[in-house]
Amino acid sequence: MTEPQSTSSFGYSAAANRTHRQPISEMMVLALQNPSLVSLAAGLVDYDSLPTQAVRTLADSILSDTDHARAALQYGTTEGYKSLRHELLEHFCRLDETDHAGLGADIDNIVVTSGSQELLYLITQTLIDPGDIVITGYPSYFVYTGTLASAGATVRCCEMDENGVIPESLDALMTELAAAGEIDRLKAIYLVTYHQNPSSITLAEERKPQILEIIEAHQPAVPHKILLMEDAAYRELSYDASAPFSFRKFDTTDRVAMLQTFSKPLAPGLKLGYGLLPKDLAEQVILQKGNIDFGTCNLAQHITAEALASGIYAKHVAKVRAAYGEKCQVMLDALDAELGEFRPDETTWTRPDGGMYVWLTLPEDIDTGPDSVLCAAALKHGMIYVPGEFCFPNDPGRVKPKSKIRLTFGLASKEQIREGIRRLAVAIKEVNG
Amino acid sequence: MTEPQSTSSFGYSAAANRTHRQPISEMMVLALQNPSLVSLAAGLVDYDSLPTQAVRTLADSILSDTDHARAALQYGTTEGYKSLRHELLEHFCRLDETDHAGLGADIDNIVVTSGSQELLYLITQTLIDPGDIVITGYPSYFVYTGTLASAGATVRCCEMDENGVIPESLDALMTELAAAGEIDRLKAIYLVTYHQNPSSITLAEERKPQILEIIEAHQPAVPHKILLMEDAAYRELSYDASAPFSFRKFDTTDRVAMLQTFSKPLAPGLKLGYGLLPKDLAEQVILQKGNIDFGTCNLAQHITAEALASGIYAKHVAKVRAAYGEKCQVMLDALDAELGEFRPDETTWTRPDGGMYVWLTLPEDIDTGPDSVLCAAALKHGMIYVPGEFCFPNDPGRVKPKSKIRLTFGLASKEQIREGIRRLAVAIKEVNG
Repeated sequence: MTEPQSTSSFGYSAAANRTHRQPISEMMVLALQNPSLVSLAAGLVDYDSLPTQAVRTLADSILSDTDHARAALQYGTTEGYKSLRHELLEHFCRLDETDHAGLGADIDNIVVTSGSQELLYLITQTLIDPGDIVITGYPSYFVYTGTLASAGATVRCCEMDENGVIPESLDALMTELAAAGEIDRLKAIYLVTYHQNPSSITLAEERKPQILEIIEAHQPAVPHKILLMEDAAYRELSYDASAPFSFRKFDTTDRVAMLQTFSKPLAPGLKLGYGLLPKDLAEQVILQKGNIDFGTCNLAQHITAEALASGIYAKHVAKVRAAYGEKCQVMLDALDAELGEFRPDETTWTRPDGGMYVWLTLPEDIDTGPDSVLCAAALKHGMIYVPGEFCFPNDPGRVKPKSKIRLTFGLASKEQIREGIRRLAVAIKEVNG
Repeated sequence: MTEPQSTSSFGYSAAANRTHRQPISEMMVLALQNPSLVSLAAGLVDYDSLPTQAVRTLADSILSDTDHARAALQYGTTEGYKSLRHELLEHFCRLDETDHAGLGADIDNIVVTSGSQELLYLITQTLIDPGDIVITGYPSYFVYTGTLASAGATVRCCEMDENGVIPESLDALMTELAAAGEIDRLKAIYLVTYHQNPSSITLAEERKPQILEIIEAHQPAVPHKILLMEDAAYRELSYDASAPFSFRKFDTTDRVAMLQTFSKPLAPGLKLGYGLLPKDLAEQVILQKGNIDFGTCNLAQHITAEALASGIYAKHVAKVRAAYGEKCQVMLDALDAELGEFRPDETTWTRPDGGMYVWLTLPEDIDTGPDSVLCAAALKHGMIYVPGEFCFPNDPGRVKPKSKIRLTFGLASKEQIREGIRRLAVAIKEVNG
């Protein structure tokens, strides 16, 4: 909405005026219009490993029992189905190899939402006024970057290396904010800590207590508690099933909100996310949710509670991990074969041990942006990728790198992965030549 | 959040500070704690008429077909499942006995949401800045009143009679706003037009073109288009299956947003709402939805699309109508028997021809509020109701009536309805004595 409003237009809000189409949507439209295009851009999940039989069995078991069926088809509660929240609390405990006390949590800390995106939105709506500051990694998950922009947040970013956000970078940024008299607007720090979208980098466990200490050290300068949002969407997708403990395990001041989702490890069509939140934040988030939808799809919650309780979920996650591990290897092999000898000092990519993404860095003179020669060439040769610049928030202190690419092997078949990388390599060499 | 914030508290937003617990939540907690309590308060739906077998059959049909199952368990699109949106467009046409041109709509006008509450929220978030004005009926749906308060809207209200909002009252209010120099802040008019929650009153069809003309007459004083939100949640619950045409049928200036839901006529556990919106509003609403959840539970959408396409939905709605018609009669008979001779000139109630509510007016000296002697007496005798004052927005120009009660026969069995009304009558007579 950059045009002046007229009587032919409704009276849009400031939030609407700050809300823009996700840059990736144009590419998704292209992909839909052209089925022969290989998309290594779309963040959809692998079709073959969707739990069609498991969900069928679970749904039938619920819907064939009159009482259970009626409960699943009636209104639920805003915070979520109680049995599911019990299962989720135990699930968090299992992942962190601890108990309720170890997480400082009981069932009232657990919230179920319409995907983890809704929980991201709810926390944002609960905390952020225009001009408030949120710190993220650089790069960061781009859908949430859009949500922050819509809320009017100022986003500042930390440097990352192969072990995730660098604690010293966070410390330096908070010191800079304090020196500029801006740290009182800092509301939250948002980190995607496992197999990050887009970089596939996992934050090293030993950095977690360090980061909490840095926040603690700066806390006295801030008139409210600083929230640490740990987005653990890909936590269960480590190919070898191992993963660092969460921030919550090291959190002695109840400032960590954990966000997880069933979209990647189970099925996005169930649209279920969940979180373990400090209790006062949970209460406020639930009040906001009361305004938005007063509860998440109850049938999906009942199905998922049964999936957890029956062990079907645990079995399925193992299958999903294996599937992505194989597809990741196919992509890495294809990159080695197609780009292994292409300006090797300047062309690098991450080697994920989990998740759905490979983060490719090209020589600095090759622009990967949506209006670049490379992007047009890739399209001409029949493939699309996500330009890396979409994944860097608008940090007023930084210039976006221009030669990165996010590749995903989530949806594409092994053959499509090979063919997509082949086409990308042809385009890169053409542009380089 | 009325307390000053300290470092033990996160930094809550202005929206969070404007968001309060729904007044009805305390009563719901009471009802849960005391199972012998008869609740004529909770807006849940009838258990017996939930479509357990139908949903089982539909879910099994979808989940046993691999391609269909995979589509239902994959990510969907933000605006909703295309086949469902096609079905919904035809459904709107059938209800208004017209075609696409008659509604001025095609599939791009249709949005699917997590219940109609999410659509109410999305429109509010899209249009309302703090201080903007929304006009509603008096009374109005109280959950949405809370959403408007959270958005910082100023709510102004129109008088209603047994045919719904009185057009002259709307005209007078808009004239008052214009005279006060405030009409430029008027963003939307929100009306629950069929079997209104809480009054059960349906807006008479002949008033619809009149109301549109009144808005049109005031439009030149407003720098943006005024939206008319028609909340038609109970549209399909007329006991005799007849209902007025919608505002959209009379809308020549594309200012009407229609909101409907599957929660009442099918199953709230599917959590599906939908709307037919002016296209530019639909686009903005979808951008907001991209921030909130980027799509509604896909499995529920596939089930509901099949319910519509197969005719199962139409059959089920007929069953639901009959069930509520019977339960309504039970409540009316019980009220006649228990309160027919109680101060009859001052004790009245609506006689619904659809929906789930009876709106009871007691003599003016009997306060029905949550802290009233009557409310305590009703609780003591084992029943709860919704105090009518919860259903009146905080209109700065009005004093809330204190002697109204919302009764619902949605959840209660026929026996519970009779017993609940008996207990209420005992409490009323005790308080009166």
